[in-house]
Parts: sequence; C-alpha cells; structure tokens
Amino acid sequence: MNDFRFYNPVRIHFGQSSLNKLPKELAAVGKTILLAYGGGSIKRTGLYNRVMAILEDCGKEVVELSGIMPNPRTEKVYEGIELCKKNNVDFILAVGGGSTIDCSKAIAVGACTDRDFWEAFYLNNEAAEAAIPLGVVLTIPATGSEMDRSAVITHWETGVKTDYNSDLIFPKFSILDPTLTYTLPKNQMINGIVDTLSHIWELYFSEPDTDSVTDNLAEALMRSVIAATRVAIKEPEDYIARSNIMWASTVALCGMIGNGKNSDWASHNIEHAISALFDVAHGAGLAVVHPTYMAYFCQNAPERYARYAVNVWGVDPTGKTALEVAREGVQCTRDFFNEIGAPAALTDLGVPESAIDDLVAHTDMGAWAYKKMTQDDVRAILRMAL
Amino acid sequence: MNDFRFYNPVRIHFGQSSLNKLPKELAAVGKTILLAYGGGSIKRTGLYNRVMAILEDCGKEVVELSGIMPNPRTEKVYEGIELCKKNNVDFILAVGGGSTIDCSKAIAVGACTDRDFWEAFYLNNEAAEAAIPLGVVLTIPATGSEMDRSAVITHWETGVKTDYNSDLIFPKFSILDPTLTYTLPKNQMINGIVDTLSHIWELYFSEPDTDSVTDNLAEALMRSVIAATRVAIKEPEDYIARSNIMWASTVALCGMIGNGKNSDWASHNIEHAISALFDVAHGAGLAVVHPTYMAYFCQNAPERYARYAVNVWGVDPTGKTALEVAREGVQCTRDFFNEIGAPAALTDLGVPESAIDDLVAHTDMGAWAYKKMTQDDVRAILRMAL
Repeated sequence: MNDFRFYNPVRIHFGQSSLNKLPKELAAVGKTILLAYGGGSIKRTGLYNRVMAILEDCGKEVVELSGIMPNPRTEKVYEGIELCKKNNVDFILAVGGGSTIDCSKAIAVGACTDRDFWEAFYLNNEAAEAAIPLGVVLTIPATGSEMDRSAVITHWETGVKTDYNSDLIFPKFSILDPTLTYTLPKNQMINGIVDTLSHIWELYFSEPDTDSVTDNLAEALMRSVIAATRVAIKEPEDYIARSNIMWASTVALCGMIGNGKNSDWASHNIEHAISALFDVAHGAGLAVVHPTYMAYFCQNAPERYARYAVNVWGVDPTGKTALEVAREGVQCTRDFFNEIGAPAALTDLGVPESAIDDLVAHTDMGAWAYKKMTQDDVRAILRMAL
Repeated sequence: MNDFRFYNPVRIHFGQSSLNKLPKELAAVGKTILLAYGGGSIKRTGLYNRVMAILEDCGKEVVELSGIMPNPRTEKVYEGIELCKKNNVDFILAVGGGSTIDCSKAIAVGACTDRDFWEAFYLNNEAAEAAIPLGVVLTIPATGSEMDRSAVITHWETGVKTDYNSDLIFPKFSILDPTLTYTLPKNQMINGIVDTLSHIWELYFSEPDTDSVTDNLAEALMRSVIAATRVAIKEPEDYIARSNIMWASTVALCGMIGNGKNSDWASHNIEHAISALFDVAHGAGLAVVHPTYMAYFCQNAPERYARYAVNVWGVDPTGKTALEVAREGVQCTRDFFNEIGAPAALTDLGVPESAIDDLVAHTDMGAWAYKKMTQDDVRAILRMAL
C-alpha cells in the first residue's frame, strides 16, 4: 500500500426523500443562487419546477445558466463566470450529471479570479485561492463529480479536454435520489455504468498489486455494479438496482477506491481525445477504448488481470495460465458491454480510421500503469478498436 | 437501501511517512496544544519524543494530559476539561488508541461549555454548540474513533458506559502510520481486530438485506481483515498486513460500511456493561459476546448469516439449509477467534456467573436487529458465554 491522503468533506444525502434536505442546506448559504443545468431534461421530468419551488420557498434570488452541454466547453464556463460576477452569486446549485457539475466547478473557481480560468487553472495548473461554494442535485450516476474535487472541461478549438483538481471545488453537499434516474434514456444509463466501471478499473489495474483493502473494496464495487445493471436494464424502476448503481458510481471516485494505489487513467486520456475531437459521450468512448486497452495491456500484468477475472467474473482458473485467465476476464468485460448494449467499436461512434493519427496526437501521454504507454501503443489500441 | 446521510470530513494521512504531515497540520492551529495520551507506551516506543520534537519545532506550548486509561472515565475527562480551561487550549492532539481519542473528544466538547459534560451530553444527549478542534496520531487500530464522530466514556460509579455523537468531534486530521503498530502487545492487536470485525458485523447483520453496495463492501473488508490478521499474527512487522489492518479498522466505522443499513449494536451494548462493571478491554469483551450473540440470534436471519458464511468464510452451501450454513459461518467465526488467541468465555475475562443479573441490568436495551432483544435474551447469551 502506498502512502496516501484521504479527504472528502462532501455531505451526501441519499435516497428517495433526499431532495427534502435541500431547504436546510440552502438555509446555510447566501441569497443569490446560480442554478446550473443542462439541455432541459429537468424541465421535462418536473425536477426543475420542484427545485425552483424550493429555491423560492427559501427566499433565494435565482440566476439561471442553462444549456450546459455534454463535454462542457470553455464558452459555457465563461458565460457562467460572467453571470456570477455580474450578479454577485453566493452559491452555485448544479442540477444534472457530470457535465453540469464539472462546468459549475470550473465556474466556481473562475468567478473568484480576474485571471483567465482556462489559462490559469487548466493550462498552468495554478492553485485556486477561492471558489464560490456549490451544491449538487444529481440526475445521472456516472462521473462521480458529485463527490470529488475534479472538473473536466473541453477547449473545443484546440481539441483539449482536461481536468482541474482542488479541494475548493468539492461540493458542499450532493443530493442523490435514485428515483430521479428512472427516466434516464437507456444509452445515458449505459454510458454512466461504463464510466463507473472504468473509474474503478483505472484505480484497480495499477500497482502496487500486493493484497490491499482497497483492491477488495474495488472488486466488491464492480460486482455490485454488474449485478445491479443486469436488473436495471430490464426494470428501469427497480429502486434497489438504481440505488446501487447511483451509490456505486459515487463511491467509485470519492477516493476510497484509489487509496494506496498508483492509478492509471490512460484509457480516460485516450477517450478524452475522442470526446474532444468528435464530441462523443464520455461513457460511449470509454466503452470502446477501455476493454481494448485491457486486451492490449493485460499481458503486462497477467496476475492482476487474472485476479480480476476470478474475483469479479467468477472465471475458473483451474489448469490455465494467468494470462489465459486474464484474457477470459477481458472477454467477460466485452461480453457484458455487448449484453447491455454499449458501443464496441470506434466506427459505432462515427470515428473513422483516418482520425487515428490526430487522436494519438491529442492523447495526454502522462498516465499509464504497469508499462509506460507510447504513442505507438495508443495507435495500436485505436486500430484494434476500429 | 434505506435513505442515509454520509459525511466524514476527517483528513487521513496514511503510511510510513505520515507523521511528516503533522507540522503542516499544526501550522493551521493555535499555539496552545493539549497533548493527550495513555499509560506511557508512547514514551517507551519513542513516539512521545518524536511528537514533542515536532510540537517544539512548530513553536507550540504544550499542556500534557497523560494516563488516559482503557475504558476512559469521567474523572479523566474532567481533568482534561480543567486543563483546557485553565490554559486556554487551542487544539487537542490525541496520541494513542480509541480510549485516548474518545477521552479527547469528550474533553473537546466539555471544555466549551459551563455545563457538566456528562449530564449535558451523555445523559441528556444535548447538542454541543462548540468544541476545541482535535487531531490524532493513531497507535492502536481498533475503535475507528480516528475517523468518526463518536466518543465512548465510562461513568465508573454508576456502571454506565455510553457514547456521545456530534459532527463537532470529528478529528480535523488523523495520522495513521502502520509501523507504529509493530510494537503493540499481541493481546491489544487481537482486541483491536475483534473490535474492527465487530463494528462491521453490527452494520452488516441488520436489515435491509436486499442486495446493496454497502453489504458487498462490508464483506470485502471482513475478508481483508481476516487475511491480514493471519499474516500479522505470525509476522508482526509485515508492513502490508499491518497497513491493511489499520486501514480496515478505520474504514469499518467511517460511515461507509453502514450506509443504508439499520445497524444493530446490541453486542456492543452488552459488552459495554461488561467493561463498565469489570473494566475489561472492549475487544476482549466483544470476542466473548459477539460470536455468542451470533449463535443465539442467527436463527432469526438465517439467509443473511448464510450469505456471511459463504461470502466471508467460503462455506460450501450445497445441500444444506440456510440455517445450517449460517451456523457453519458462526462456527468459522469462533474458530478464527480461537486461532488468533482471542478470549472465548466470560470466565476468561474474570466475569463470574453471579454477575449476570447485574450485567443484564446494565445493558442498554435500545439496540437490536432482526428481532427485538429482551433482557431474557441478554441473560441467555451471557449464560451461553460463561
């Protein structure tokens, strides 16, 4: 186990009555609220009206930032920063999924400086000195942003999709009501599940491989996600399955599953290039990239991948080499993604072979596990994924 | 899954270099520090000198509260409160195990009121309005107090051992260095492991029993503790085993393993009566009580106990009833405790049969799972444990 720091001060309110906790949370914050949300699904589901009624009851003045897109872009962050500065916003309430939350986090730090947020925080990784506090009402279990200190933003013109991390952008609270996910379109649900599993893999498939509490917790979480997904695919309003998916996606990236591990994040980096250039949904990109990455790299850590195969998928290792077991585990992963209808190839995402060199050039090469990843590796993985 | 709140703002510094984080943590707090510790083992191991050198380097004025006993008593809390008030203590640094931390937490709230701390907080459960901030250097993995909001104190004259809970007594930080546990006497190590498993059981063996992330995480944690204990018993300086034991004991009670569960705590309540009347080490008392409690009550939740037997102990359920499998799981628990040398009977603790009525009378009957516990149940369990 590596030395580690674990710190996560987010207050989670989980369950079907959790929205009832919003008034008390709002009572502790200032009068002017930036209400941040996405493309309007919260209006169709009635959540917008419920939240607005609470904000009104609490006597808040509401400034709205709507239309936050998947792979949220710098333009939207600038728009939010301007709204915050102009209206002296005291608190940001993000109602939505990871894109809305990440955009809100970038606004939170960007509105507290006169510097350009992209240059200061995303390109130069400067330490933010202040942030507008923010809270979350989560509608899409996927990114874990509701309980982490990270915000991923895309700079469309330069094709850069990258993250900024700071304790200042931990949400003060996050409200997780599984019933809010009942109406999620199936592809968004699947993308979220892929993202959740991918987060766990990025942590689990990295050294040290010595026996650790963290690895055991990671395997437990993977088994939960897989079992709950099989139920929720068939019964979208199965409360228990939706609860498990929602809570697992949050736990996956709250820090608990990475304690003492090096972590990887290479698959995320390859996917970020795909999203940045083709505006593909993050989970859809990961569904294509991550199993391919596993197939390509599992030979570098056959024992670890074999452990995964046995403990997560129940592969029988009798009479097989570690690498054979490892490859069965990767195949189980692919089979599961096929079973739930996740995309399997770059062409499913509308990404042509001709884009590969550009994708390679846009992939951040700074993250890897077991064996340093080269641009040739990325190229090979993308070709395998065609 | 029940609705739940999860909130835990403790900063954990984990690992063999974690004591190096102390100066930075201390830089953020006031000048006068109450250094709280136990019977002097930290002087024998050299930890006292290391911590004092850091405090001196940081320019702190140190007030010492030493001699905090196992099952910390009200007298010691009063002594600490007086020291804090007299010296205007800014921060409490607890160096030790659960007793030292719990005593420090009670001092932290007791020093910020003119009321009697025992009456106000422990008997009347009033909400504390302020607390002196505190930090921890942990030497005994066991109680989880280093990452929770609870403090158990014993009022010796009335034989009451009970807890107080408040967000105000979360430690600001806890330093967890597994190498500090190398010198722990074997019985203290075993008591800590029993306490850790007991915490997980108090949460795991309770409704709802529907599939949940939390139950999967609990099983993972139990397996980690069992595997690491078997190594550490033989190799006390096995860093990986000690790391897993230390981190598992902290995670067990940080809230993550109870999310969405009713919880039980009846075994803890029975043991609290034993500790309060016989000053028995908490873990030693639990080693006797908890497996007996399981054997007595498993018939009320055979499916849950069978799940435990299969998933934690690898019991083969083929051709057996749930209750048969459940009982095998309980037997595995007993066998494991015997294997590691934990006490198995009340008489091992010096508790005679004649004390049973008094123990029953001192047991808080407010906690139970699956079936409401009566005083007759407690009497039967204690008789079985003789």
